[in-house]
Amino acid sequence: MAASQAIAEFIKALGKEKVLTDREDLLCYSYDATPDVPGALPEAVVMPENTAEVAQVIKIAGRYRVPVYPRGAGTNLSGGTVPVRGGIVLSLLKMNKILEIDADNLIAVVQPGVVNQALNDALAPYGVFYPPDPGSAATATMGGNVAECSGGLRGLKYGVTKDYVQGLEVVLADGTVVRLGGKTVKNVAGYDLVKLFVGSEGTLGIITEITVRLLPVPESRCSMLAVFADLEAAGNAVSDIIRHKVIPATLEILDKVTIRTVEDYLHIGLPVEAEAILLVETDGIKEVVEKEKEVLRRVLEKHGALVRIAAGEQERDQLWAGRRAALPALARVKPTTVLEDATVPRSQVTRMLAAIREIGQKYNVLIGNFGHAGDGNLHPTILTDARNEEEMERVHRAVEEIFKKALELGGTLSGEHGIGLAKKRFLPWQVGPEGLALMKKIKRALDPLNILNPGKFVDSADLDENGEKREGEGETGR
Amino acid sequence: MAASQAIAEFIKALGKEKVLTDREDLLCYSYDATPDVPGALPEAVVMPENTAEVAQVIKIAGRYRVPVYPRGAGTNLSGGTVPVRGGIVLSLLKMNKILEIDADNLIAVVQPGVVNQALNDALAPYGVFYPPDPGSAATATMGGNVAECSGGLRGLKYGVTKDYVQGLEVVLADGTVVRLGGKTVKNVAGYDLVKLFVGSEGTLGIITEITVRLLPVPESRCSMLAVFADLEAAGNAVSDIIRHKVIPATLEILDKVTIRTVEDYLHIGLPVEAEAILLVETDGIKEVVEKEKEVLRRVLEKHGALVRIAAGEQERDQLWAGRRAALPALARVKPTTVLEDATVPRSQVTRMLAAIREIGQKYNVLIGNFGHAGDGNLHPTILTDARNEEEMERVHRAVEEIFKKALELGGTLSGEHGIGLAKKRFLPWQVGPEGLALMKKIKRALDPLNILNPGKFVDSADLDENGEKREGEGETGR
Repeated sequence: MAASQAIAEFIKALGKEKVLTDREDLLCYSYDATPDVPGALPEAVVMPENTAEVAQVIKIAGRYRVPVYPRGAGTNLSGGTVPVRGGIVLSLLKMNKILEIDADNLIAVVQPGVVNQALNDALAPYGVFYPPDPGSAATATMGGNVAECSGGLRGLKYGVTKDYVQGLEVVLADGTVVRLGGKTVKNVAGYDLVKLFVGSEGTLGIITEITVRLLPVPESRCSMLAVFADLEAAGNAVSDIIRHKVIPATLEILDKVTIRTVEDYLHIGLPVEAEAILLVETDGIKEVVEKEKEVLRRVLEKHGALVRIAAGEQERDQLWAGRRAALPALARVKPTTVLEDATVPRSQVTRMLAAIREIGQKYNVLIGNFGHAGDGNLHPTILTDARNEEEMERVHRAVEEIFKKALELGGTLSGEHGIGLAKKRFLPWQVGPEGLALMKKIKRALDPLNILNPGKFVDSADLDENGEKREGEGETGR
Repeated sequence: MAASQAIAEFIKALGKEKVLTDREDLLCYSYDATPDVPGALPEAVVMPENTAEVAQVIKIAGRYRVPVYPRGAGTNLSGGTVPVRGGIVLSLLKMNKILEIDADNLIAVVQPGVVNQALNDALAPYGVFYPPDPGSAATATMGGNVAECSGGLRGLKYGVTKDYVQGLEVVLADGTVVRLGGKTVKNVAGYDLVKLFVGSEGTLGIITEITVRLLPVPESRCSMLAVFADLEAAGNAVSDIIRHKVIPATLEILDKVTIRTVEDYLHIGLPVEAEAILLVETDGIKEVVEKEKEVLRRVLEKHGALVRIAAGEQERDQLWAGRRAALPALARVKPTTVLEDATVPRSQVTRMLAAIREIGQKYNVLIGNFGHAGDGNLHPTILTDARNEEEMERVHRAVEEIFKKALELGGTLSGEHGIGLAKKRFLPWQVGPEGLALMKKIKRALDPLNILNPGKFVDSADLDENGEKREGEGETGR
């Protein structure tokens, strides 16, 4: 069998200790943080230590047509790293060095296995930081962040991963190593392939080195909690803040279900009678923070909120610990947590919040809702039990209706989690058959043997020689 | 002949008034703002009024294998819009409507023929603006800005075109219309094709609608002029400003040749004895501007500058008029102006400035140097005469050496002008044969008939069926 020959070659090339084949090991790499997606056991886990080893692995995989599933910490929420056709998991965790911190040029160069938080810890003494901060920052790797184009809490003011990646080293599907982009902010030497690889979910190449842009750490910040007796009022306040020309660093919402669950978990004094809370942080020089604080307070109170300004760093940290506990707290309530990231234009947040509440009632499923309200990126979280088939059927219908509503309001299926396996069948709803065909043409051009993360949102297996759809292999239609 | 049949079809589809074939008209579309690049007369100029007409044109062009050269205002500086194999020029100037201003979501939607400055004029009453501001903002179109990924004076703090384009409607090479991206900042539904089309220089599709992100207009600003008796000191001050955690909105340099030429042209009292000046502007809320102004003054003076703060809006406008006159003023000196945009990491600006001066002396050519020092994006401008063959030979060798030096210092061939025709042969120096092969694979996948802007930096004509290089059609090697 091809795979066993390939495994022998991986061992020959990398050494036995970098190729795992024990069933217990394989099991650990057969799933990721995503619930409710089908997976399969990989045939081996390969752990290269440098770019040359990655290139060797890819060349061997190509020769034997072995699927390659690249993986960082496996924290992703779209099934992006789950193997579906056997093959190998390519773990980048051994490539975990920070290669360069160039504070003068506001640049850092890292290997893909570096953890997001570890980078920021290393940057702190230089007074600079890497802004994208996914909820999983403490464990997620930079390679995974780039492959999924992670967002996070600071997206409203600071943008997301793609806004900070300036250069990449990538091993292509034929084992060729390319270096794309570089250290300059301005760079228009041909197609912007850096941005094509950011968010490509491991389907176009293996990212082996990342050059990111940094920013000076803001000298001051201020957090506040706004308590609302009405969900819509909270949604309206979000739009009104931006209308007052204030762009907070973070602007997060937690609904009643989430507030109660977090309070029950952490006992930090959250207002359990509230219908919603907004957590807002502004940062910058002291004078800006003072000024924006007053504008924020005024706007929030205008919409009926009780506003509490965090008195010191300790109270601030407690507030944000509460926000970061939203997902783990919700996940404790029921065995299965289906977390979505439907995203709408900011002005539609109120309508989306109301729609999600109604959809929960309609399908009689328990939905906790929280997320990055400032950029319209909500995380409706359905608390359920995968063993209850009847309920799961209702969950699936509720999720579909949430996606349809987000698209109807001018939004997207996914703000920051990616498509992967979990949302594969919904993608044509958003990008149309033409958009999907275009993505598949690119996939096929770069990975003609379809060995890189096959079976995911863009799978060229069903395209003929001309990149056209094969007869009888239709996509899920609109 | 295929072209004449195609022209008959264009006329049938769009009407005679939208298809120009008179020699006088064709002549006007046979060149753009780039000096010293070969061009050819197009066989027709086609001026569609809407997306459906663009799609019709592209389908006809595909049927007859007619090259299509898309064009906005023709202000580009890399030969990007110059026809090289006959065919048609596709002018997007009739598609010049602003379709939507959505201030609540900080979004505008425009057709490609809208002029950059016209968009900002229309946005002004809403208190928002579109940050990218190429030197040609008063005439360049948004379609051209997107196709070339224009930069400009505000790049240091605000970034460039790709940082602001969130959605596109594109007519593909087969006439299919796709809508990519959308109104949300966070959006990870498949490959980020929006960013692939930004900067693709008309080689992958025709951009027919653009959704851009806007920002609130800063409430206050302050400009200053720093006069240096030493070029290196000016370069060092640039790095030191960022080291003090101040990121000015603009940070421009003019060298002695440029200062004298501008003063000779405008008589605005520039210091003609200076070796260099820096023009710096900070913006934001009043308190930020006050604070940053003092930091800037201190740092600039530390490096030996005489600093003059612009007293009011009139003095400010005069300073920036001086900067914007740099290119037209230099262009008056000699018949031919070869303007480059080699870009280096900020910390290398001093070395690059010195290198350019030495290269000018070595080849005995007159170089005025100015540009966006803050993001390392310099505009060495060689003043020459295309009719003087011997001098042009020295100009070409000087340009080559400037490119080599920029790459050696970790920079790029082009910060904001693009590759087009003018830098086609240098591109492999930067991206390597692997990088160029990758770009060509994408080109071939999206435009298999090679009808979109053929002959430019990525020309799939020399690839075989598998996207591999044909025998004997080597690229310029490293």
